[in-house]
Amino acid sequence: MLKTYAYQDLDAQAIQALVNRNTDPNHAIQDSVLQIIEEVKQHGDVALKSFAQKFDKVELEQLYLDAAEIEALANSISRDQMRALEIAFQNIYKFHQTQVRRERTVETMPGVSCWRELRPIEKVGLYIPGGSAVLPSTLLMLGIPARIAGCREIVVCSPPQNNGKINGFVAYCLKLLRIDKVYLVGGAQAVAAMAFGTESIPKVNKIFGPGNQFVTKAKSLIQGMTDVSIDMPAGPSEVLVIADESCTPAYVAADLLAQAEHGIDSQAVLVCTSASIAAEVNKELESQLAILPRKELAAKALKNSYTVIAKDLQEAMDFSNAYAPEHLIIESDQWKAMVNKVQHAGSVFLGHLTPESAGDYASGTNHTLPTSGYARSYSGVSVDSFVKKITFQHITEQGLEQIGSTVEILAELEGLHAHKNAVTIRKK
Amino acid sequence: MLKTYAYQDLDAQAIQALVNRNTDPNHAIQDSVLQIIEEVKQHGDVALKSFAQKFDKVELEQLYLDAAEIEALANSISRDQMRALEIAFQNIYKFHQTQVRRERTVETMPGVSCWRELRPIEKVGLYIPGGSAVLPSTLLMLGIPARIAGCREIVVCSPPQNNGKINGFVAYCLKLLRIDKVYLVGGAQAVAAMAFGTESIPKVNKIFGPGNQFVTKAKSLIQGMTDVSIDMPAGPSEVLVIADESCTPAYVAADLLAQAEHGIDSQAVLVCTSASIAAEVNKELESQLAILPRKELAAKALKNSYTVIAKDLQEAMDFSNAYAPEHLIIESDQWKAMVNKVQHAGSVFLGHLTPESAGDYASGTNHTLPTSGYARSYSGVSVDSFVKKITFQHITEQGLEQIGSTVEILAELEGLHAHKNAVTIRKK
Repeated sequence: MLKTYAYQDLDAQAIQALVNRNTDPNHAIQDSVLQIIEEVKQHGDVALKSFAQKFDKVELEQLYLDAAEIEALANSISRDQMRALEIAFQNIYKFHQTQVRRERTVETMPGVSCWRELRPIEKVGLYIPGGSAVLPSTLLMLGIPARIAGCREIVVCSPPQNNGKINGFVAYCLKLLRIDKVYLVGGAQAVAAMAFGTESIPKVNKIFGPGNQFVTKAKSLIQGMTDVSIDMPAGPSEVLVIADESCTPAYVAADLLAQAEHGIDSQAVLVCTSASIAAEVNKELESQLAILPRKELAAKALKNSYTVIAKDLQEAMDFSNAYAPEHLIIESDQWKAMVNKVQHAGSVFLGHLTPESAGDYASGTNHTLPTSGYARSYSGVSVDSFVKKITFQHITEQGLEQIGSTVEILAELEGLHAHKNAVTIRKK
Repeated sequence: MLKTYAYQDLDAQAIQALVNRNTDPNHAIQDSVLQIIEEVKQHGDVALKSFAQKFDKVELEQLYLDAAEIEALANSISRDQMRALEIAFQNIYKFHQTQVRRERTVETMPGVSCWRELRPIEKVGLYIPGGSAVLPSTLLMLGIPARIAGCREIVVCSPPQNNGKINGFVAYCLKLLRIDKVYLVGGAQAVAAMAFGTESIPKVNKIFGPGNQFVTKAKSLIQGMTDVSIDMPAGPSEVLVIADESCTPAYVAADLLAQAEHGIDSQAVLVCTSASIAAEVNKELESQLAILPRKELAAKALKNSYTVIAKDLQEAMDFSNAYAPEHLIIESDQWKAMVNKVQHAGSVFLGHLTPESAGDYASGTNHTLPTSGYARSYSGVSVDSFVKKITFQHITEQGLEQIGSTVEILAELEGLHAHKNAVTIRKK
């Protein structure tokens, strides 16, 4: 079912071809996204209301829901569902809470003290996709680190449903996060609204969140057009599963399908240590796929996926590091020995009982992760993403004596005499 | 000399107008940079050699200097200069060394363990400007955190001098960093070479470093065109000095001039707590400027600068936070009380004896910092910039029992049945 390659037959170029994905950005999208951005920039709320009519098929009188409306929607979900969202909230909070710590002051020379302090990014914008899939989990993954960081203003945009509201699960997460307003705006227009500000929607300093290709394109465009930054470039989701003889093929197949059901452009890669594992996983894929509600979608994604047969776990890991997967699952008894070998990945799931879906929702780790090979240079979202680190320094008279001539010599050799003089004048 | 505004006369819009800078990107530059990128992409080394001829007026047979050539150049500088570079190296190393620490594992539920591990970005490219100003200090500021992070490949590009070599100071820093090769490429073509790779120059994962507007534009363009990331968007350098009655006007003027001498597009902003301080600083500016070698340049930059008179330090800090300066100097006896009020800045210099030039060279803090208001959402370069943080998780049988139903409920409510099944199948 999955296309299969033997690692030993792959040269560097063939590996490169396999790990390349999403390298052909669609320029047709760029033009229409630029047009949407321009509309929002020029016409603000009016443009947003007309886009709601056009794309979300809903007439909006006001572009947001307030605390009372959020409360009412939040109360519409079941007690079990509330409880599940609360547990996810707690675990995500617990893990993210440990991510920022005060750093100590370093005296680099006697009298020269340097340190860093954290400051929250003041205004952040969170984009929560709606439409076909409703993703309350994404709101938790972005809202919790924003709250821990202490961001003063958290602007949430999510496309309206047909009834002009948002879904009760998202509403309940807003309540857990103590966010008392949500803007009913989706797509590229939401990104533009948060980047430039409109009558209703505040301009933010940084925009976070996944989305379809319009949202993604809008994020990358506004990054070049404004002083607003973004969490990371985003592409379709992906998983790479490493499996050896100790694996349970049914688990491996279930993990590949969990990725495949995201969308037809998702990629699920299996790297296993024998052809017989691949055969067994393929058999499981077939039977599990048959009973899946989103089977058409998943089947198409599997066409876009493949298997690599490696001779051992080391080779499997070499391929994984070349691929730099968003999600890496290591279904092997040897998982402990593999941890140090993971060089490029977004989030890693270790052993036979750690499915990716645990981390997608509730283990505590973040699910907003670098795709398309960006794991080579980007980290996933964390509290770090919502803070800046400012360096401070203080020099005493003794310190100036210690460091002064060094600065003077270096300024002199770079030909910057006023730099030198800023020290010299203080030494008098 | 400096234009002067009273804070009390400024409404929100007027403040916005004052803090806005570099908001008009030059599209003429974009076209020529795109052309340079295309040339390098298509013709590799051949294009680089022809650009060296055109822009650097030098015929290059080979695009790099090797260890022996670097060693020879490094030995050409004086013992005092070597010593100054060594002290800078040690201080920068000492401060940056403390920036990354192993994080502890969090058990979010019994049997559910989550943690983050650092991994270096494998291949990094450092751009070291040359031309009129030679900046060995920038090589230290980028090379040291790259070494501490453990980056496997550090590619350094710097424009060749007329003699087809690099300057001895840069060579000595290469030696201190144990980097045994430097590529003789400058400008947008250097960025393109590191983004796409050529016969001589390896493709990297992330590109760092300041540069003129061509370099900056190239960095922002390749970020959208490739999977290569960049340290931060960069604009002209800037300082904001807060000064109260306790200041020494001559020091304040010296600090403003140290900024102004960088280039005509630099900005030096004085925020002080009385008109008489402003008058005294202006007087000092005039006399110090008169004897400065780069006085024409600095005088032009001062035309682009201004003073704001605030009623007290709090108001001064409000303006500074609105401006979000790259460098903030607080020349006041009250500096300790101001630290917590600094919300947006790149690097902060506290008290009367802490000139910015100390941090530019040798105190230990990094001088690659967010300009143009980017300090609202970006941090300066640090070891963080050279690593990724990968999340890991491991779930035991007990953990799966604890977390399983939560994941199942959440997957169900998001309509992702294969996600649910990845847990259900493991519970059997």
